Formats: sequence, C-alpha cells, structure tokens
Amino acid sequence: MQAYDQLSHHFSAITSLRQVDSLLDWDRSVMMPPEGITLRARQSAVLNVKIHEMLTDARLNDWLEKADDGKLDPWRAANLRLMREQHREATAVSPDLIARKMAQEAQTEMIWRRARAENDFAMVRPDLEKLFDLVCEYADARAAVLGMSPYDALMAHYVPGMTSAEVDVLFDDLAQVLPDMLGRAIDSQPEVVALDGDFAVERQHQAARLLAGKLGFDLSRWGRLDVSAHPFSMGIGGDVRITARYDRRDFMSSLMAVAHEAGHGFFDRHTPASWHDQPVGVSGNMGMAIHESQSLGVEMQMGRMRGYWEHLAPELAKIFGGSSAVWTGENLYRHATRAARSLIRFEADEISYPLHVILRYRLEKHLVAGTLAVRDLPDAWRAGMQELVGITPPDDAVGCMQDIHWHSGAVGYFPAYALGAVIAAQFTAALKRD
Amino acid sequence: MQAYDQLSHHFSAITSLRQVDSLLDWDRSVMMPPEGITLRARQSAVLNVKIHEMLTDARLNDWLEKADDGKLDPWRAANLRLMREQHREATAVSPDLIARKMAQEAQTEMIWRRARAENDFAMVRPDLEKLFDLVCEYADARAAVLGMSPYDALMAHYVPGMTSAEVDVLFDDLAQVLPDMLGRAIDSQPEVVALDGDFAVERQHQAARLLAGKLGFDLSRWGRLDVSAHPFSMGIGGDVRITARYDRRDFMSSLMAVAHEAGHGFFDRHTPASWHDQPVGVSGNMGMAIHESQSLGVEMQMGRMRGYWEHLAPELAKIFGGSSAVWTGENLYRHATRAARSLIRFEADEISYPLHVILRYRLEKHLVAGTLAVRDLPDAWRAGMQELVGITPPDDAVGCMQDIHWHSGAVGYFPAYALGAVIAAQFTAALKRD
Repeated sequence: MQAYDQLSHHFSAITSLRQVDSLLDWDRSVMMPPEGITLRARQSAVLNVKIHEMLTDARLNDWLEKADDGKLDPWRAANLRLMREQHREATAVSPDLIARKMAQEAQTEMIWRRARAENDFAMVRPDLEKLFDLVCEYADARAAVLGMSPYDALMAHYVPGMTSAEVDVLFDDLAQVLPDMLGRAIDSQPEVVALDGDFAVERQHQAARLLAGKLGFDLSRWGRLDVSAHPFSMGIGGDVRITARYDRRDFMSSLMAVAHEAGHGFFDRHTPASWHDQPVGVSGNMGMAIHESQSLGVEMQMGRMRGYWEHLAPELAKIFGGSSAVWTGENLYRHATRAARSLIRFEADEISYPLHVILRYRLEKHLVAGTLAVRDLPDAWRAGMQELVGITPPDDAVGCMQDIHWHSGAVGYFPAYALGAVIAAQFTAALKRD
Repeated sequence: MQAYDQLSHHFSAITSLRQVDSLLDWDRSVMMPPEGITLRARQSAVLNVKIHEMLTDARLNDWLEKADDGKLDPWRAANLRLMREQHREATAVSPDLIARKMAQEAQTEMIWRRARAENDFAMVRPDLEKLFDLVCEYADARAAVLGMSPYDALMAHYVPGMTSAEVDVLFDDLAQVLPDMLGRAIDSQPEVVALDGDFAVERQHQAARLLAGKLGFDLSRWGRLDVSAHPFSMGIGGDVRITARYDRRDFMSSLMAVAHEAGHGFFDRHTPASWHDQPVGVSGNMGMAIHESQSLGVEMQMGRMRGYWEHLAPELAKIFGGSSAVWTGENLYRHATRAARSLIRFEADEISYPLHVILRYRLEKHLVAGTLAVRDLPDAWRAGMQELVGITPPDDAVGCMQDIHWHSGAVGYFPAYALGAVIAAQFTAALKRD
C-alpha cells in the first residue's frame, strides 16, 4: 500500500473512534442516568488514550514523510495537512495527561449541572479549579511543541491559524464601538406587543421540531432533536444530533438556539459523505470560527430577516394560540431584532453578542495566564459584564456558570463565536450583494 | 507492577471499551436516526478490532503465566480465569473476521427492522445469508482452538461449560413431555374476563415505569426505560438500560417484558460496583443461562404469583380505567398464568416457552451444520412450530423474523433461555422450600 493509503486507512479508524467519543459525550449530556458518570468518565478516558496512541503511532512519521508524491488532488492534500497537524498536536501531550483531563472534564461537567440548577458556584469551584490546573498543564505542553503562548496553543485547537494578538486587535475595536452602538439601538427601538406568557415545554418542542424541519434538518432520516442543559450540536458521523432547552417564559430563545444548532448540524451533515471518515470530511476540523459562522448565519442573519418571521408567524400562532396581535410576522421580527442589555450570551442580540464573548475571552486568557483565580471568577464576571454590556448579573447561575464550556474543559473556544458572527455577517453581506 | 495488577489494569481498559460498545449497540437500537447506520457499523467494527487487539496483546501470555502466585483471593482467581478464557477465545479469531462479522451484523439488523415491519423475509434474506456465512466462519475458527464442534463453540460464548450433547438430552426430554402438558393445561383453565381493548402506548409506558419502579429498577438514579423493536437490557457499566415495545391490543405482554428486562438489569447492577470494570464484575461473563435465570425468575416465577397481580391490579385499573371486573388481582393472575399455543416466544407461558426455544435451538444447529439453508428457514420454522407448539404461524413476521438474535449474529444464545427457565424454577422451588 502507498503511504497515503496507509494514512487514510489509519485515520479512518481514528475518525471512527472520534465519532464514538462524540456519542459518549452526547449520551452523557442527553440520555445517561446520573450514576453512569463514574464509569463514563473512565470509558471516555480509555477511548481517548486509544485515539491518542493511534495519533502518535510510530509508523506515522514514515508515512507522513512519504505520503505527498506531488500528485495528490486538493482534497487529499488538505486531508494530509490535517493528519500532519493532528499527529503534531498529539505528540505534544502525554496519554496520561489526556486521561486525567478527560476524567476531570466529565466530573466537572456533571457537578456543574447541579451547581447551576442550585445556583451554587461553591459547589463546582473545587472541581473547576482542578480542571483549570489540568487545562494549564495541557496548554503548556501544547505551547512547547507548537511554539506559541499557552492560551494561543489552546485557541489553535478551535481557531487554527489565528493568534490572540490578532484577536485582541479585532476585539478591542469591537469593545470600543459596540457599547455605544448598543445604547443607541436600545434607545431607538420600535414598539412591540409583549410575548409574555407560559409556553408549555411540549408546545415549544413541537415548534422547535417544526422550525428544524423547515430549515431542512431532517429528523426522520439523519437528525435528532433532544433536550439538554445547554444546547449543542453533535455529528456522530452519519447522523447529526442537536439539543434544545426550553424556558417556559420565553419560547423565542429556544427557537433561536434550535436555528443555531441546526446551522452547526448542516455543516456536519453536508460535508461530502465520501469523506466523512477522514479528517478533511469532519467539519470541526475546519475550525470553530468557520463552524460558528454557519450556526450564527442561520440564527443571527437568516433568523433576523423579516421574511423568516412572516413565514413562521402563522404556524407559531397555531401551536401556541392566544392573542393574534402577538403572532404577526412584524411583531416577531421586532422581538427577534430587539437589542438589550441581557445576561445570557446565547440569547443576546447581534450587537451585544460579541461583547459577551469578549468578556469570556478576556477572562479565560487571565485564567490560563494565572492572573485570575477561579475563586475570583464570579466577581470578575460581574465587573466585566457591567463594563462591557452595562448590566450586572444577580447571581452566578446567570453569570459565570451559564455556559458549559469552561466546565467541560473547552477553553479557547469562545473567540470562535465572535469571529463566527463577523464571518456570518460578511457571508450574508456578500449573498445580498450578489 | 505484579503480573496480576498488569492484567487488572489492561482488562479494566478492555472492559471500559466493551461498555462503550454496549452503548453503540443500545444507541443503534433505541436512538440512532436511520442514516447513522453506515458509519455506525464502521464505528463498531473499529472499536471491536481495538478490543480484539487488546485481548490478543503479546504481553498477555507472560502476564497470564505469572499472575497466579497461589495467594489470589477467590474474586481475583475467578477474574484471572475469565481473563484467560477471553484471551484464548480472542486468539481463535482474526481481527479481520471480527470486523466483517460486526459490520454485517449491524447491516442485517437494520434491514431486519424494516423486513419485519413489512413482513418480507425476502428483504432480509440476502443479508441474513451473508451473516450466517460469517457466523459459520467464526464458529469454525473458535471450534479449532476450543476443541469442540462449531455449534458448541458458539454456544460456549453464552452457556460456558455446557455442550450441545448435554443440552440435547434435557431438551429432548422436555420436547417429549411438554406438548402433552400444554394440551392438558389448556383444557383445564379457569375462566377469565377478557383483557381486550385499546391500551394507549403512553399509558402502557406509564404502567411499565410504575412496574419497573416497584420492582426496584431505579429510573431516577441508574436506570433507563425506552422503546425499541425488540425489548432488551444493556448494562453500560454504571447504568443499566432496558427497553420495551408496546402492542396497543395487549398491555400484559409489554409488562411481562419489562419484568424480564428489569431482571437482567438487576443482575447487571447488583454485581459489586468495585468490580464493574473487571471481567468478573460483568454479569454477562457468568453466562447467559444464569443471566436468563434472573430475568425469567422475575418474569415467569415472581411475575406469575397471585400476590404480584393482587398488588398491581388497583394501580393498573387507575392507569387504564374501564370495567372493574377486568382489574381484579385474580383475573390478572389467571391471564398471567394462562397457557396457550401462541406464536411469540417472549409472550409464551412457562410450559410452551421451552418449546419455542427448542425449535430455535434445533434450527440454528442445522443452520450452522449446513443441513438447513437460510432460504428454507420459513418452511422449517412453520413445520417445527406445528410439531412442538401445535400451531402454524400465518406469516414470517410472527414466525422466523420475530426475534432479533439471528439477525444480529447471536447464534448459540437461545438454549440459555430454556436453561435459564429451568434454573429460575429451581431457584424459586428452593426459595419456597427454605
């Protein structure tokens, strides 16, 4: 067998096991009974050690050296580039560290679910501290091999090809401009008919399924839509699973989240099927800034167009009933495009959304640099929210515990959201122009 | 590290990956959207090749030789015995064969679901033929190493320590006695008030959850109860998942199946937790005859006692409503203990149940020996049902396609059911006596 084919065979197996790992994660968040956690953490750890062994297989050096015979087509060449990167990143970190980090991630995330429900940051703090210690150890190891700062070495996993120095420039610009813009938008908003009410979870789930279907997310053939503490999307290879969470007082945020996760799902699903078992066919390997441009493109660009809500309004009226003045396309459109100083990132409007992200980006840089301690996170969060968004959270459940990311070890991810929002806006501008 | 500790560490990883494999199976049957199947088959195959590599690791010979220092306690000694067996069985079969068999199992099972729903044996036949070819190849490979016949080599996986010659003696006896006993039981049954009606699936699910809870199957802490084409139980390590299927015309069979699967679940859950990551802590390694004695003990022994139904009757009356004459403990007890010439194995009474199993046992022995072709299976099934149970199935959906086992590659399993029924009866007799 030629070296490239050897690699392709080897990375097909790695990609399959990564899909299995995705299923373990999905199941843990959506299906697993609570007491499954102890052994689930071990299962993930063992599987990831196996994947790591395969990524650091001694034969890879030889294959990687010989694989490019100058005749690879662009897909194969891109595939080879990703294999090389994955090998390089894997050799940076010991299997033991991977295992310890994975176990702590699962443990912390499980406790975070309870801590957030009970609004008790002290409950999750010890585990979050342990997890950040491991994240820093991991960042240092990557930094040494990749030749960049520890935080950049984390971010490179989600936003390959971009440094935090570049992100700083963009984010500092945005932090300069957006707070004023937010104030002006709030001051000049058109009137709306309130959407107050009690929206039964079953009806919201029905509306969510309807929206997913209309967007083209096929729940009968390749998609699932379930409920979890934090909405997410997970490609398992041949199928794609998204989740929602429902707030009885607010159906719109759940619909927005469904549109967001469906956007991720489309990117997972619509990479060419014949490449689904190779690194180049896995959407996540394109970087999460690009991935978020797809989800935010559906949620924040398409989902904030007048026609979108004019189309949905009569259907939602049927599902939820109540006053007809509420369920006009114009009224829903005004709600969807309404700016506000709000507490929750994923419910935020387009203007304040990047500010929420910038806060997290700055905090996690400090946490990794050691210039902020986990125990000081709630205070730093409150101060940052006041400075950037102009509002102070009343508690940690809607403050520093609102997002799953840090509690599951995903540090360096957040910038991808704001970068994705920018890219989505650029895509949409180009679409409109053409 | 001592050899035993090396082994323990190694087999803990193997056991974890087996749990992951169980999750893949559970998800495939319960959650996965249809188009997930192509890559799911590949995921299972890759994972099983990994497990196989670990079971045939070159270091094992040395460790297994040195592990027994004469000071192992009974748990460790039993654990070592199982490690030795698993290593020996794994070396019998090539990773390539495992992978091909796994892929064909997933493929056949998926098609079987459709074929059974559409009552079309011809739809699944080509895949079932391919699967039996692979099962025979697998049986031959095991037979050569284990020094037994191909069928016995398959059965050894589920009923370790017993030969088909021994099973033949018991089953021939039962096949001699039971048909007459069945006839006599049918002729002398007490009258019942019919349970005809339309039992909504949601209410059956409610009743199933109630029963599971009363039996001690804890759905809030460590258990799940879902719906699948064929009821099954799956221990994922720290949690246990059972499934039911609901027939609107017949709530009792779904309740019986829930009791059955809960029995399996208890055995999974109640092995000592500190051994859950070792072969000796995995209930399935005790053999499926013992496992079925636990499930059939709950379903067919405990579940056919008068007090069981007297306790459930008022609760079921509340859930299903309707005539009060139906919902007396005595009437439900009479239904539960009613004998009949029926088509479906898992709905059968205690007398005809072993006859259903004996039919399958005899047929699968012939299929493996090559003295029966897959294409002749429907005819052979009909003839065998008439001979043993005294009834001929009107179609293959309630005939040779009713069970998942052959369609998912589980050949040699069936005898465990009848052996389990015998053991359950012995346990119950001993319990009553003491």
